[in-house]
Amino acid sequence: MFPISDLIPGNAVIGQSGGPTAVINQSLVGVVEGLRLGLHAAGVAKRVFGMRHGVRGLTKGDLYDMTDMHQDRLDSLAMTPSAGLGSTRDKPDAAYCERVLEACKKHDVRYFFYIGGNDSSDTCRLVREMAVSSDYDLRCFHVPKTVDNDLMENDHTPGFPSAARFVAMACMADFMDNISLPGIKINVVMGRHAGFLTAASALARRRDREFDDVPSATTDGPQLIYCPEVPFDLDRFAADVEAIYAAKGRCHIVVSEGIQDKEGTPIGAKLIKNAQVDAHGNVQLSGSGALGDQLGDLLKERLTPVGGKAPRVRADTFGYVQRCWPDASPVDRLEARRSGQYAAMLPLHGARDGSVAIVRTGSGSEAYLGAAGEPYASDYKRVDLKAIAAKTRHMPKEFLSGHNNVSKKFIEYCLPLVGPLPGFERL
Amino acid sequence: MFPISDLIPGNAVIGQSGGPTAVINQSLVGVVEGLRLGLHAAGVAKRVFGMRHGVRGLTKGDLYDMTDMHQDRLDSLAMTPSAGLGSTRDKPDAAYCERVLEACKKHDVRYFFYIGGNDSSDTCRLVREMAVSSDYDLRCFHVPKTVDNDLMENDHTPGFPSAARFVAMACMADFMDNISLPGIKINVVMGRHAGFLTAASALARRRDREFDDVPSATTDGPQLIYCPEVPFDLDRFAADVEAIYAAKGRCHIVVSEGIQDKEGTPIGAKLIKNAQVDAHGNVQLSGSGALGDQLGDLLKERLTPVGGKAPRVRADTFGYVQRCWPDASPVDRLEARRSGQYAAMLPLHGARDGSVAIVRTGSGSEAYLGAAGEPYASDYKRVDLKAIAAKTRHMPKEFLSGHNNVSKKFIEYCLPLVGPLPGFERL
Repeated sequence: MFPISDLIPGNAVIGQSGGPTAVINQSLVGVVEGLRLGLHAAGVAKRVFGMRHGVRGLTKGDLYDMTDMHQDRLDSLAMTPSAGLGSTRDKPDAAYCERVLEACKKHDVRYFFYIGGNDSSDTCRLVREMAVSSDYDLRCFHVPKTVDNDLMENDHTPGFPSAARFVAMACMADFMDNISLPGIKINVVMGRHAGFLTAASALARRRDREFDDVPSATTDGPQLIYCPEVPFDLDRFAADVEAIYAAKGRCHIVVSEGIQDKEGTPIGAKLIKNAQVDAHGNVQLSGSGALGDQLGDLLKERLTPVGGKAPRVRADTFGYVQRCWPDASPVDRLEARRSGQYAAMLPLHGARDGSVAIVRTGSGSEAYLGAAGEPYASDYKRVDLKAIAAKTRHMPKEFLSGHNNVSKKFIEYCLPLVGPLPGFERL
Repeated sequence: MFPISDLIPGNAVIGQSGGPTAVINQSLVGVVEGLRLGLHAAGVAKRVFGMRHGVRGLTKGDLYDMTDMHQDRLDSLAMTPSAGLGSTRDKPDAAYCERVLEACKKHDVRYFFYIGGNDSSDTCRLVREMAVSSDYDLRCFHVPKTVDNDLMENDHTPGFPSAARFVAMACMADFMDNISLPGIKINVVMGRHAGFLTAASALARRRDREFDDVPSATTDGPQLIYCPEVPFDLDRFAADVEAIYAAKGRCHIVVSEGIQDKEGTPIGAKLIKNAQVDAHGNVQLSGSGALGDQLGDLLKERLTPVGGKAPRVRADTFGYVQRCWPDASPVDRLEARRSGQYAAMLPLHGARDGSVAIVRTGSGSEAYLGAAGEPYASDYKRVDLKAIAAKTRHMPKEFLSGHNNVSKKFIEYCLPLVGPLPGFERL
């Protein structure tokens, strides 16, 4: 253990940033618990403050004292989806970070924790660098969070398993609906740059099927899965659907909101009227049904009519419920909590900054087909902020299969994370 | 008990029709169980057949023998969302019903069960009348099903409580998301003519709030609820949102897909490009995000900019996942099963036709605020087919409050049906 006498007494602040998830409050509570057991108990962290709406609240002095919150309230907060402290889409530049640092000095903050995606990690990095330059000992730590699962260094990211659970369960049930009343069904799933969440829809297929070598038309739905990592071609898409529709009289499709053509232009961003742009320059993709509707219209126009009638085509866009549905994955709840606790303990081990990354230590292969295998297990490690900051992880090639499917390897990767899925009976 | 010797031995058929629900297979299994325990055990119903895709399958002789299905498979089927036998949107006219009757004669069917909404009840009625005319003893029974909750004579309809549970939980979580990242959020909920499912979104509000007399801006979300029973006016809508947005910096809105203007023209149907029409003449409302997107665009244009920027507006359309989400209401599961069992027993009590209706026998007021009260209880009764057939029940006036809210009476009506809802912690 690092000598505690080397740590400067002061306050700690915790903030949440970016799109909320079902478990980001687990991480918040984890940091509070870790601080109370560690730095606060040691007399180093005097008060533990939450920032209201992230760095935006911090700069205004809008803080919420969590030092003495009753454990019952913390436990209840941890089970609440959304960012309990409020979140922000602000992406601080140098001037903004200067104000953040000033606020830290003003409130005697020496320990700064920020829960979010790669932009939040970048904020930690900037604030830390500025603190170092001005010779102010401010320890800055990032706790990972994103349903997109696109942080570097992480086996997976807190928030992703719960969103993947929702997508898998929604697709399981929706495929049964599609068998009941056959037609063409498109589901649009979140994921601006990374296809992990879209790929998770493959968990909807029954486990006793193979995934790599079987033609799409013979699998359970979704039969076609389009991730943003593979260039999306409208003609090829229509041909894919036509082939399965001709064979089965129905087709179940999952498409990432972030699909893009071979020039890298997002298909969705081109189609959304009045699209809004956030402070990060990201065009709004969620909160609109435009992509699904346009793809549906395309299929109605292009597909061969059956008995003189255009095929029945419907499109649903899963929307924000993917990231906030209350039935979170048990694995995700635990890991999000522990990620926060781990971050809070880092200063006690001498760390001045860093991010927490999840490492898989047991493959969880036993979750697949119930075969004898290794139980799922994970651990945590500290990584440099700059290894995470402003970088995006994509689906590795080995997780993809062809241009419209995922591999068995991906199923084995994802299945242990999402918790138990229901079993359905087919007649 | 009616003398069994009066019942003509033959086969029984069961079909499912219209939009699937999370519990329509409970009703299917209920009919099978009721027949096996009753008519089949008595030697009257020789075989119990399922129709594949409703009357469409029956006319083609596409039947599935369920007589000896193992109880384990039945129990698993009952927990599976969707119509296990397949469903159909066919609305039989006289000529079609003639073919249905011919198929019944060909397969020696004497007991006909049809699970569905008011159209299915009408099919039962037509087939029964034709059988009577041709002096063929065919007993026809309807088992209620619809997420819209719009069947006459029923306190509520199997399928509704589970869909209401999904809508309530989605709105609970989405409201927390809306607090985290404030903005204007529109959620579009199923319900072509009846606003029950849209109204169920009010269960998302915390229970310790009043609902009748409190200004919308001060309640939890959804702050604005628009049912199809109240004429929808775009100007009034924009003004409602502006008022709450000005007060809170955010606004959480739920809108029925079936909202219509004062001339009775659906707002949604007007907006959807390439809308498809089914055999019942119903314009497609679900399976598209158009209504939400158009309402969102309207708000972006009309609302007062804040700091020179249009307000952040997002729209989600909950889509088919509302009717098939696997986490069904426990009350709904039980009642759907028992409705089927009850229908299967009706011939043993001398009934020649009829529909099953749910009667509430215990108010369930104890579910509200945990106050001392009456536990929820329900029972079943036989009603005439024509009392249900082709009729639509709407939200009673006492369930509405103003033009954009629901009453406390509605909350008391709906809350006992949906099963336990999570409790969230707010900072």
